[in-house]
Amino acid sequence: MMDTSVFTLPQATSPFQIEGLFGLEKENLRVNPDGTLALTPHPKALGDKLKNPYITVDFSESQLEMITPPLPSIEQAHGFLSTIHEVVSANIGEELLWPSSMPPILPEAEDEVPLANFGQAGKDFEAYRNHLSTAYGRKKQLISGIHFNISPTEAMLQQLFEQSDHKDRETFEQALYLKVMRQMMRYRWIPLMLTGNSPVAHHSFLNNGCDMLTAKGDTHTHEHSHSIRTSICGYKNKEEFFLNYSSWKQYKSSIQALIQQGKLKAEKELYLPFRIKQQPKTNRISHLEIRILDLNPTVDMGLQLRDLALYHLFFLWALYSEEQNAQFTQAEQFVAYRNQYQVACCGTHVELWDAQEQVMANQKELVGAFLQAVKNFLPKDLPTSTYHQAIAYFEQLNDKPEGNITHKIRQEAQKQGFIDYHLNLAKTYRQQAHQHGFQFKGLEELELSTQLMLREAIKRGITFELIDPAANFVKFTKDGKTEFVQQATKTSLDTYSGVLMMENKVVTKKVLHQAGVQVPLGADFDDPKRAKQAFARFANQPIVIKPKSTNFGLGISILKENNEEALFLEAIEAAFNEDDTILIEPFIAGREFRIFVIGEEVVGILHRVPANVVGDGNSTIATLVEKKNLDPLRGVGYRTPLEKIRLGAPEKLFLATQGLTFEDVPKAGEVVFIRENSNISTGGDSIDFTDDIHPSYKQIALDAAKAMGVKITGLDMMIQEIDQPATAQNYSVIEMNFNPAIHIHCHPYKGKNRHLDAKMMDILGF
Amino acid sequence: MMDTSVFTLPQATSPFQIEGLFGLEKENLRVNPDGTLALTPHPKALGDKLKNPYITVDFSESQLEMITPPLPSIEQAHGFLSTIHEVVSANIGEELLWPSSMPPILPEAEDEVPLANFGQAGKDFEAYRNHLSTAYGRKKQLISGIHFNISPTEAMLQQLFEQSDHKDRETFEQALYLKVMRQMMRYRWIPLMLTGNSPVAHHSFLNNGCDMLTAKGDTHTHEHSHSIRTSICGYKNKEEFFLNYSSWKQYKSSIQALIQQGKLKAEKELYLPFRIKQQPKTNRISHLEIRILDLNPTVDMGLQLRDLALYHLFFLWALYSEEQNAQFTQAEQFVAYRNQYQVACCGTHVELWDAQEQVMANQKELVGAFLQAVKNFLPKDLPTSTYHQAIAYFEQLNDKPEGNITHKIRQEAQKQGFIDYHLNLAKTYRQQAHQHGFQFKGLEELELSTQLMLREAIKRGITFELIDPAANFVKFTKDGKTEFVQQATKTSLDTYSGVLMMENKVVTKKVLHQAGVQVPLGADFDDPKRAKQAFARFANQPIVIKPKSTNFGLGISILKENNEEALFLEAIEAAFNEDDTILIEPFIAGREFRIFVIGEEVVGILHRVPANVVGDGNSTIATLVEKKNLDPLRGVGYRTPLEKIRLGAPEKLFLATQGLTFEDVPKAGEVVFIRENSNISTGGDSIDFTDDIHPSYKQIALDAAKAMGVKITGLDMMIQEIDQPATAQNYSVIEMNFNPAIHIHCHPYKGKNRHLDAKMMDILGF
Repeated sequence: MMDTSVFTLPQATSPFQIEGLFGLEKENLRVNPDGTLALTPHPKALGDKLKNPYITVDFSESQLEMITPPLPSIEQAHGFLSTIHEVVSANIGEELLWPSSMPPILPEAEDEVPLANFGQAGKDFEAYRNHLSTAYGRKKQLISGIHFNISPTEAMLQQLFEQSDHKDRETFEQALYLKVMRQMMRYRWIPLMLTGNSPVAHHSFLNNGCDMLTAKGDTHTHEHSHSIRTSICGYKNKEEFFLNYSSWKQYKSSIQALIQQGKLKAEKELYLPFRIKQQPKTNRISHLEIRILDLNPTVDMGLQLRDLALYHLFFLWALYSEEQNAQFTQAEQFVAYRNQYQVACCGTHVELWDAQEQVMANQKELVGAFLQAVKNFLPKDLPTSTYHQAIAYFEQLNDKPEGNITHKIRQEAQKQGFIDYHLNLAKTYRQQAHQHGFQFKGLEELELSTQLMLREAIKRGITFELIDPAANFVKFTKDGKTEFVQQATKTSLDTYSGVLMMENKVVTKKVLHQAGVQVPLGADFDDPKRAKQAFARFANQPIVIKPKSTNFGLGISILKENNEEALFLEAIEAAFNEDDTILIEPFIAGREFRIFVIGEEVVGILHRVPANVVGDGNSTIATLVEKKNLDPLRGVGYRTPLEKIRLGAPEKLFLATQGLTFEDVPKAGEVVFIRENSNISTGGDSIDFTDDIHPSYKQIALDAAKAMGVKITGLDMMIQEIDQPATAQNYSVIEMNFNPAIHIHCHPYKGKNRHLDAKMMDILGF
Repeated sequence: MMDTSVFTLPQATSPFQIEGLFGLEKENLRVNPDGTLALTPHPKALGDKLKNPYITVDFSESQLEMITPPLPSIEQAHGFLSTIHEVVSANIGEELLWPSSMPPILPEAEDEVPLANFGQAGKDFEAYRNHLSTAYGRKKQLISGIHFNISPTEAMLQQLFEQSDHKDRETFEQALYLKVMRQMMRYRWIPLMLTGNSPVAHHSFLNNGCDMLTAKGDTHTHEHSHSIRTSICGYKNKEEFFLNYSSWKQYKSSIQALIQQGKLKAEKELYLPFRIKQQPKTNRISHLEIRILDLNPTVDMGLQLRDLALYHLFFLWALYSEEQNAQFTQAEQFVAYRNQYQVACCGTHVELWDAQEQVMANQKELVGAFLQAVKNFLPKDLPTSTYHQAIAYFEQLNDKPEGNITHKIRQEAQKQGFIDYHLNLAKTYRQQAHQHGFQFKGLEELELSTQLMLREAIKRGITFELIDPAANFVKFTKDGKTEFVQQATKTSLDTYSGVLMMENKVVTKKVLHQAGVQVPLGADFDDPKRAKQAFARFANQPIVIKPKSTNFGLGISILKENNEEALFLEAIEAAFNEDDTILIEPFIAGREFRIFVIGEEVVGILHRVPANVVGDGNSTIATLVEKKNLDPLRGVGYRTPLEKIRLGAPEKLFLATQGLTFEDVPKAGEVVFIRENSNISTGGDSIDFTDDIHPSYKQIALDAAKAMGVKITGLDMMIQEIDQPATAQNYSVIEMNFNPAIHIHCHPYKGKNRHLDAKMMDILGF
């Protein structure tokens, strides 16, 4: 009998012992809205498939491959992949991403499945793909899955090296990874039993059937089917190869032998569930590749975070566990293959064998022991609860295997039909991708403008490195070109002095004034006497007198004539009652617009309206706010393009100044303002006016940017009448912002997405 | 009898009524160290004399002309001129600036006096100068003086316009300036009596004598001589011209008539003591030019601020006074000429006439009444005391005219000889100019690095505008090129992102590390437990453990081996006792150097030493500090390249840690440190090492700047042995500063001036 003590692990003493680098690769087939394989070329919107490090194709032109870089947590890897998935979903037109590992409606003839087309530059790839077509058939190669790349951190490796008897770090790593490989190969049936996700296949894929499956409608399945992809009907070599796992040298030799025997074209044709990957030039081991994760059709991106947690724990167990026997004999390898296929076929409804080819009666106990072992191993002060939640989920699943997701998938596929079931899911997921098109999952702590830039980088295949995430500082690289960008709009395109000029109101006003751009020149005073003496200077022109810091409009006077000194003096006193310094400026009536300039172009114009609701004649203000807050664009804490309207003290106070409370019911169509200030951060609405403003104001914004020598600016302008041409009297430039947010122009409350993320990447030269 | 009531003025109600724009032009002859006129070309170091707006030549190639722009106060104009004077003094080699209006030893023949040579581009100037040579003789044209340009502010003009009966602003200005001209012409003898400064002339200038003067040695003078320059022996037309001052049109016509009659070549040949100047294209009046200020040889720059105050008050009086009679008849003009010449000849020892050509017995009373009138006029809350001090001085002088400076000049010239007296002064002034070569007078509120840049701008003829003086923000313009520069080193040459990268220590370290530059990578910890767990990560390497914010070195441990965990844990605790966050970094021994990079060049390397004194065996520490503080480079409040060493509480405390007090007497040669920190701001010494550091470190600094994409940076580097080449272990880049001070490299405590001001102007393209 197999002993559960094989899973025993020491307890980790520090969270650093479970650190690592995590990368994901995922394939999805493109399908037409009718569920047939899309036969179109790789979409141009997704960049050059030969160079984009995040989005390419695999075997077939229709088989998208999404790739994350190595990331420091499974949460980040999962989020990153989810974001690639969203970006791809939103940029393939009418086509959809097929959410199952098992293919959709395929062309009848094998050779109608298009091979990946890499043109002249990809001749080598094509030769190999032609070999695969011949050896396995094109349809078989369309089975899609997820690869999970994982490596311990340098500190972990160093610690393990120091605790080992090895003298040489390289040979230590080879021995270590080989042990990990043996342990994972031996017990791979455990995570597979908990995570299989491909219980059904389509008739057009399996038109000749497969022993373990039977057809029902268009759906091939089996009473307990679990993971067709990793089963004998799935994506595998034609025969099982037995390798020599006893030393690194022998392991590599045994693979080379298969190639020399003509059984494999290259090492990469060896479809093991796990692979030890090496760096191309140094041959140093870089990571372990886990290849037995199916696409999970029940979640939009095809992957549950808990499944990553499970495989990470499985890897850690293999890394830290003591092997009872460093041999991994052919007999053991055979049993391990058999157990994989048994579980892939039928989940828990099978007989598994131990190394002595005895039937294991205690499968559930073994799985439980493994889960207990990794739970005990986890350090107590773990930064995230992901792992504990995952273990709890899988313990429950081990207890009640009928809760396995494969049952639901099978039932639904049989009920709706294989194609319709998956097609409906695909359509729902695409809609969700469009709705959440502003976030970068796993990096939500970044400011929204930066998240948009990273999404655009994925689309264009621009490699990025978060060089200081806390500061939203990103290094973008593509085709040998590097740009450092902070907060989306702080770039190398603007100069140090240009930014300082925008930051300095005195300088901004002087330079714009010298360039003939209207600004509220005015003056500031910290001495009431001198301010009062200035009447003559400001007489007979519309002016505004205000305290330097504004506070709910207190102390602000607008003198449209300013021909009575007494009124002027009163206004000065009113302003000084609120602040030690006051401003006297020419008064410009009108509304304020944010005009966003990139290079030689006005790329977006926005007007902000204070938080408000529109009455329906029935609902209270509180209810109207609640409804308005349901918009997915509205969130809390600047992680969404708009903020939820609050019902707090300031809002209550401002309603009170209008004689209103939260419980009043506005008339249908009546607009009630909830705040005085128009900031988006307090629930204001952003309204796109890019196409509605007279072109003369756009020209002024461009002139202002030129005078200041700046490339990227968010210029705030007061405009009296947006459809009238600019004159010396009817507008005024208030401020030029040197770090304007782009997201408000991409996802306004009303109006089009002006794609400032794309415009920024254009001007950065990517 | 002349009535003192002509001087009555209303009291000004606001300081704004005495505002104005003030410009100065000053001529100085270049002389050889023996007192002969320098016959060399205009010095190349002073830029292109045709284009430099601050430094050019006048009639003769040897006659330097220094020009300030219009400035908002007489203090600024005076300081600006003083600075031009200093810059010129320091850049004419062995030659000296002749400090008198009356020329030095001149060549015997008139035609040996060199005319200004403007080459092809200045043909027009030359033709006019040839005319002057013929008409007046070259020697006469060498008489040098000061022109004071003055105009009221726009607000003042507007107020006066509104109070007038004029409907048209332009004709109002013409009438106003003509009234000012008449009043000043009438009473010009008053300021002249108080400010004449040219009582002596040299034999080689007046070798044919002049009626009113007699020769004594090389000195031509007269018992009471006052201002030879403005006398009949001075710089004047051959005859006195009488103009029609009754209207603007008639005034201009009467000048044109003189030109048509061939009496003048051009309006500019009309050598009136005052001129109304017009803008070249619009013909709008721009300012009034006051031309009767002699060079004052008793002050280095040739001009007392009080004299400017007097002429400004004289102008204000003319502006605001009510004229008794708007006619200025030929008889009046004649009396005014006569009075000027009388005073110029003999100061107070003359009979002056009134308009009826009656002798004025009450000269002193009239001067007193004028001074009283302008004193009463001044608003009470005047921002500066310059005017009150000037009036007090001149009241005293009016009371005791024997105190006039001209008496002293005459006595000294007679005693030492005209040439030796002025030559000695010239040499003293040049030495002072070199000693104060770091300030911009009148703009001392600017940061020192900015002051150095402005001095360099003067030298090169780069026009500058203080676009925001409080922020040290300057607009430089030359030959159609404009650069905005803040604090000397914040320019358009660096990018927004480059500066943000330098500002961000995380980014700096990552980018330099990726570029192969050594940085203290290390890590920061805010959790003692995690910090303690990091022992393995830092074991067996020299490290320093320190609180994030340093405070007198408390909590800092250097572990040169770090092979004992217990010591490591102790050090962690010691650091956490001082701060919530601690740093663990590789330890680099050695000294810290500031390496200043501009473009592709290391332009300066500096090491800072904490405030210290070197014992002489006799003096107490307090006395040694006092002596060291006498260095003109040391000042208070960052307006000098070094700060005075203080003897305050921190210094007392730090001495106490060494068992010392201020009253201890160090041995001869013993170095006693007064502060622990090496900041210049607390009296530290700056020591130039530019030529003493192994070139490999300079290359690293350039590599670092390149990796960060920055042009101007002050890189702080720890270096173990400055004469050993850099290795991966013996240096570390601590920080890259994005606003490094340039002045510490220009005026170090020890070492050469590395002229970073000039290098900055070079890279800015000026």
